[in-house]
Order: sequence, then structure tokens, then C-alpha cells
Amino acid sequence: MGFTKDINRRATPFQAIVSYYFIAIAISFVLLRLPGVHKPGVHLSLLDSLFTAVSAVSVTGLTVMNISETYSVFGIVMLLLILQLGAIGIMSLGTFVWLLVGKKIGMRERQLIMVDHNQYKISGVVHLIKEIVKILITIELVGAAVLTLYFIQYFDNFQEALLHGIFGSISATTNGGFDITGLSLLPFHRDYFVQVINMLLITLGAIGFPVLIELKTFLSNKNRNFRFSLFTKITTATYGALFLFGTFVILIIESFQAFRGMSWHEAFFSAMFHSVSARSAGLTTLDVTKLSEATDIFMSFLMFIGASPSSVGGGIRTTTFAIAILFLINFARGKEEIQVFNREIHIIDVYRSYVVIILAVAMVLVATMILLITEPNATLIQIIFEITSAFGTCGMSLGLTEHLSPIGKVIMMLLMFIGRVGLISFLYSIGGKGKKTKYHYPKERVIIG
Amino acid sequence: MGFTKDINRRATPFQAIVSYYFIAIAISFVLLRLPGVHKPGVHLSLLDSLFTAVSAVSVTGLTVMNISETYSVFGIVMLLLILQLGAIGIMSLGTFVWLLVGKKIGMRERQLIMVDHNQYKISGVVHLIKEIVKILITIELVGAAVLTLYFIQYFDNFQEALLHGIFGSISATTNGGFDITGLSLLPFHRDYFVQVINMLLITLGAIGFPVLIELKTFLSNKNRNFRFSLFTKITTATYGALFLFGTFVILIIESFQAFRGMSWHEAFFSAMFHSVSARSAGLTTLDVTKLSEATDIFMSFLMFIGASPSSVGGGIRTTTFAIAILFLINFARGKEEIQVFNREIHIIDVYRSYVVIILAVAMVLVATMILLITEPNATLIQIIFEITSAFGTCGMSLGLTEHLSPIGKVIMMLLMFIGRVGLISFLYSIGGKGKKTKYHYPKERVIIG
Ligand SMILES: [K+]
Ligand SMILES: [K+]
Repeated sequence: MGFTKDINRRATPFQAIVSYYFIAIAISFVLLRLPGVHKPGVHLSLLDSLFTAVSAVSVTGLTVMNISETYSVFGIVMLLLILQLGAIGIMSLGTFVWLLVGKKIGMRERQLIMVDHNQYKISGVVHLIKEIVKILITIELVGAAVLTLYFIQYFDNFQEALLHGIFGSISATTNGGFDITGLSLLPFHRDYFVQVINMLLITLGAIGFPVLIELKTFLSNKNRNFRFSLFTKITTATYGALFLFGTFVILIIESFQAFRGMSWHEAFFSAMFHSVSARSAGLTTLDVTKLSEATDIFMSFLMFIGASPSSVGGGIRTTTFAIAILFLINFARGKEEIQVFNREIHIIDVYRSYVVIILAVAMVLVATMILLITEPNATLIQIIFEITSAFGTCGMSLGLTEHLSPIGKVIMMLLMFIGRVGLISFLYSIGGKGKKTKYHYPKERVIIG
Repeated sequence: MGFTKDINRRATPFQAIVSYYFIAIAISFVLLRLPGVHKPGVHLSLLDSLFTAVSAVSVTGLTVMNISETYSVFGIVMLLLILQLGAIGIMSLGTFVWLLVGKKIGMRERQLIMVDHNQYKISGVVHLIKEIVKILITIELVGAAVLTLYFIQYFDNFQEALLHGIFGSISATTNGGFDITGLSLLPFHRDYFVQVINMLLITLGAIGFPVLIELKTFLSNKNRNFRFSLFTKITTATYGALFLFGTFVILIIESFQAFRGMSWHEAFFSAMFHSVSARSAGLTTLDVTKLSEATDIFMSFLMFIGASPSSVGGGIRTTTFAIAILFLINFARGKEEIQVFNREIHIIDVYRSYVVIILAVAMVLVATMILLITEPNATLIQIIFEITSAFGTCGMSLGLTEHLSPIGKVIMMLLMFIGRVGLISFLYSIGGKGKKTKYHYPKERVIIG
């Protein structure tokens, strides 16, 4: 642990986070090269194993080959394990291990966890990590139990139902989106119960751990003065609003395209499911290549925004999007302060949202140009869809990822990595420490847009 | 003029600007429906005439039909007249007319002009407008003289050389980009003199009138304490940097594509010319449909940024882009104030750049989705290229505009209009007056990206 300690002491917390993610990918890579991981006769290149490792640690689920044809049962168990690690978060798991061995968490480690989950209060971090793991496993167990009982009608024996129940629950809750059958949820395109359970599990994983913890505190009714944080209010409202908006837009566009011939309820559930899933899960109940290009672009937008901070999702995150929208509305109204839910948004958070959005747009633009050159057989819509899917750690695909060139694979790995780490952490990690300006120049106005 | 006065008194300056542009389009529309404007036997729909009017007033140059087959010489003269009006700007021309008839310019009119050209000093507005017209016409005359003398070698007689000299000069200086021959500058793809003259004229039109005026003051050496404004420094530096960057990227991408087989100097000039032209002129020396998709996307990015404020160009403008970049760099460095050229950027200008960029990206996204639905035969790259070309009032085309559906035409007109007016003016005009916040809520941090 000398190396780790050294990182902790020297680097900024953000640099340490990025380093830890690197280490997690390295460990996952080793796990995926263990003997017996592949099916007999399958040989995977090192680059492809690395791609799978990055995709699994970042809970994205994009793959360069067919999982069921490549990995043995042991390999799939390894993948599920990596997904679980990715979902819980390297930092919280590390803390959990420390807790198990009875080690006290020092200030420095607390800070690290704090940064990873973007919490601003230092107290209660140990408690927090315990809660994260407890909540996640509870959700997964309940999900697995419900799905297993329901799946008994579909399968020959209890073992198979249990296997699919457990896999389905972990896949949905971690928003992993890995497709081990090659069918995702297509067999359930008319089973609304399975879809509702999946949407619930996806949402619980993507809504952000702070929301779950606050919700639990609220429901347990221990604290009479309990108040939901501004973060919880904003992210939940945004998550919900984008869910409704996404359902509405997909339904409108596809009513005369892919949903033609469907009953109204099947169309409605298809729209709802893909509105939820595009935000980070990547599960599908239909062949997404059948959707129209307008929907592809719209879903790219949803994937680009992604899920809540401190959740299993990626993208620019709900709060970034919400603050941008609130800022716009306020600016148009000529107000100076952004007021929402009886609170004021701190100006530094407006700055951060600006930085994240500009960088994310620039990244998508540059990645698009590179892939247009390295993937001559791909269409622009495929490239944009695949890029936003990687950045939003969603994992939906129009089929391009399987045919990527080596450079294309590297670009996609970078996008998944940055999408998972978060642009702000990534930026700070390459930037270094803040310096205070020592002197001031006269201010001068310029002409804008 | 009762209507105009009424607008002036009631509306905010921004609303008045937008109203004036509306009136200019209406007048242009009427001019383009005059008898004798079309060639014999040509019948143009009202929508198509309106499209041409919007395209000409906004100095974009996108057309839904072949200009040379549709308009008579009289019609083309009308088009040049509208271009000229569009370039000088409705407000400055209006002021010029007032000057001619000896009417004093009131405070209200001064404010209007001030807003149109984004000048923050009220004094010297009359002088400013005089200067704008004087400078523009001087540039056009010099350009026309140089081109005419040079064209004598190409044409049978002086009259023809003169005609092409005048048209070429106005087309380049106003950044009009209208193609009355169907060939743009393709015949001159190896005539570097014509290309250099065109690039110079384009740049003089697109660099912004304040820059030209300051340059003139500086060169005339009347004022010993003269200092270039921060605006001039930023916009010139950005314009130049993007020119070099654009040349470099286009050259790199196309060396193995469209420029293959060209001499190094022809490739170099092709890259330079299209780097300059994409920013607002829209003139071309080669068939742009031959460029690779990576270049298409990159040129869409250049068109999206556009030219300087207070120039004949559109887009988000150089200063918006520059401030976003400066803000990013500062944020990564952990500095609070943006310092550049020994001056500090005002925070309100950072806010404005945020608003303009977010709105512009949202606009392109929504327009893309609409056109994907209304133009089923268009590719995504065509749609993005055409949309950014309209918003940047550039006028380059991959061929889609000629085949647009009526809804597509309306969307493109809106984009040209907003691109010309500028998003900030447009936003203020629909927003209303600013209100001061009366009370404060407690500030609370949230988690960002
Ligand atoms: K995923
Ligand atoms: K133009």
C-alpha cells in the first residue's frame, strides 16, 4: 500500500480518485485475463480485454464482442463482480474493506471519499459508506427476490429463475447494461411488470446515493427537523422532469415510425423504458437500430446529460443540466441570483456547470471528428450515438462498437473513463491546485454574441 | 413613421432592433417581388421569395434555387442592394439617411445604434455611423478597382471585368456569399492573387467595424494616447488564431482526401481560403461536397463560432468563444478573475457567453431533430452543416437547402435571422426588462458533474 499512500499524500484528492480508478481498471483487466475466463478456443486481444475492463468498471456495458460467445460462466461472474465494484465505487468499497478490518478512517481518506461522492460535509463519512453498501445490496436483494419469484413462470426450474433474477437485478441496479444473452430485455417487450421493476431498479441506482440516504432518513422518521438537501431536490426534480420529457418526445417521434402498429400501452411503455434507460442503464426492450434518426439524436442528448452525481451513472449529470437551465431562465428574467426551492445556488456551481458543459461538448466534437476519420464505414449518427453512450456510461449501441478500429477503441475507453470519473474531477486532476490572484487589472467590457 | 416611433418609445432597444430587422426583411421581400425581378417565365412562391429576402438581409447567401436562372439583371441588382443594406446594418443606414436629411439624432436613436453595434459609449455615435459607411464603401471601392484591373486579362472587354470586379468586391466585403454564377470562386482555385484579395476583403468585413475604426484612428496618428480597446484585441486575436487553427486542421484532414493530388501551395491556399470563408463569407474555391465528413463537422464548428460582433458575420461570435476558452483556462488554473491583455473581463460578459453558447447549442440540437423529421432524404451531416451555415450566416451548402420542405425553409430562415440579430439581442427582445431581486435566500451548494 506504499504506492497508494504516496498518492494520497502528494496528489490532490481529485488526482487520487483518478489514480484509484486506474488501479481498479488494472485489477479488472487482470481478472478478465485469468485462466478459465474465456470459453474454450476463444482468444481475446489485450486491447479487447482492456476495453471490457474499462466498460465494466465504468458500468457502461459497451462491448467489442458478443459476451455470451466469449466469456465462460466464470468470466461472467467476474464481470458481475467488476460491475458491482464499479457501482459501489472504488472509494466506498475501499472504505468498506477498511471498516471490515477494523481500521480507523483518517482525515485524508475521509476527504477522498467525500470528493468521490461530492459530499461537502466531512462528518459521517464512515457512516455514509456503510449506508451506501447496505442500501445497494438491499435494493439488489429485493430486486432479485421479486424477479426470481416472477420468473418461475418463464423457466423450467427454480435454479434458472434464480440465476436470471439475480443477474437481472444486479444488471438493472448497477445500471451495468451488459448484455450476456444478446437479447437485453427484448423478450419482455410486452411484460410491463418486468419493465416496471427494471425501471425502478435503474432509477434507484441512477438517482444518486445521497438521495437514497436522505430518503431513508426521512422514512425512518428519526430526525424531526429533517430537511431534504437542495441537491436531492434539484436532482430528483431534474431526473423526473427529464424522464417525463424523454417519454413524451420519444413517443411523439416514434408514433409514426418504430411504434407504428404497436398498441398504445406497448408504445407508451417502450417510450418510458428507453427514456429511463438512455440516462445510464443501456437496457433495451426493442432493437434500437429500428428507431428513427431524430430519436437517435434525442437519446444521444439524454445520454449526454446522464444521471445524478454520486450515482452509478455518467454524463454531465442532472445537476449540471439543471443549473444551466436555471441560469438561462434567470438571465432572461434579468435576475442576478438563482433561487430555487427557497435556496440560492452558489455562483461557483454555476461556473462549474459552465466548465463541464463546454468541455463535454468539446470532447464529443473532437471524438466525433477522430472517429469520422478512423471509422470510414460508420455513419455520423452511429458515431454520435456511440460517443454519447460511452460518455453517459449508458452502453446502448447502434452496432458500431463491435467494429471499432484500435484508435476508435482507445477513444471510447477514454470517454467511458471520463464519463464515470466526472469531468470536474478529471479537470482538477490534470489541473493542479488553485492559486489566488495577487493583483487586479482594470475591468473592461467587451461585446458578446 | 408613427409605427417606428411607437416601437422606439415602448420597446427595449433590443426589441426595437429585432423589429427593425423584421421591417428590413419585409422591404426586401417587396423589392424581390417587383415586376422585372425574375427572368421571363420564372414563377417563385412567396415562401421562396421570403427565404431569399431573409438570406440577403442576413448576408447569408443560402438559396433555395439557382440565382442566375431565377433573377434578371435587375433582380440581381436588387439583391446586391439588399446585401449592402444588410452589411451596413439597418440601424447605421437609417442614421445615415437621417444625417443626409439634416435631422439631429436623438438620445433614443443613439441608444438604438449603440445596441446594434454593441458600443458602450454613447458619445460619438453619429460620427461612428458616418465612419462605418465611409470605411465600408472605401474598402469596396478599392477592392472593386483592384479586382477590375486584374480581371481585364480574363475578360473580353473592360465592362465585363468591371461588372465582375464590383460584384466580387461587394460579395466578399459584405460576406454575402451569394452565388450568381453557380461557380462561386471555383474558376480561381489556382489564382492565389484573387484568393488573397478575397480573403482580405472577407476579413475586413468580418473583423468588426470597431476594429476598423480603431485601426484607422491608430494609423491616422491623431491621438497620441490612443489605445486599442480590449474588444479589438480579443476579437482580432481570436479571429487570427481560429484562422490559423482552421487552416491547419483542414490541411491535415484533407491532405489524404480532397487535397490529394494537389500541389502543396494549392492545398495550402484551399485550406486557408475555406478556413476564412467558413467563418461567415461562404465563398468557395472547390466543390465542398468533395470534402470529408470530418472537415464538414469541423467547418460546422467554424461556422457556429462565426465572426466578430458588430461585423457582417453571425454565429456565437469570436468574443463569446474567446471568453469561454479564457474562462476554462482560468478555472483549471484555479484563478478567480479572467485577466487578458492587462485587463480584467467583466463577470457579466462571462455570464453572457454562457447564455449564448448554451442557447446556440440547444438551437442547433432542436433544429437538427426537426429537420431529421421533415427532410427524410437528408443525411445528418448535411443537416448539421446547413444549420450551422445558416446560424453563422455563412451560406456554404452541401446541397440540402435547394431541396428543403416548407417547414425546413422556415427553420432555416429563423436560424439566419437569429444568427444575424445575435442571440443576446434576440433573448433580450423576447425576455423583457431586468428585475432586481428583492430578497435573498440562504445559499446552498449542490454537486456538479
Ligand atoms: K450502463
Ligand atoms: K455569408
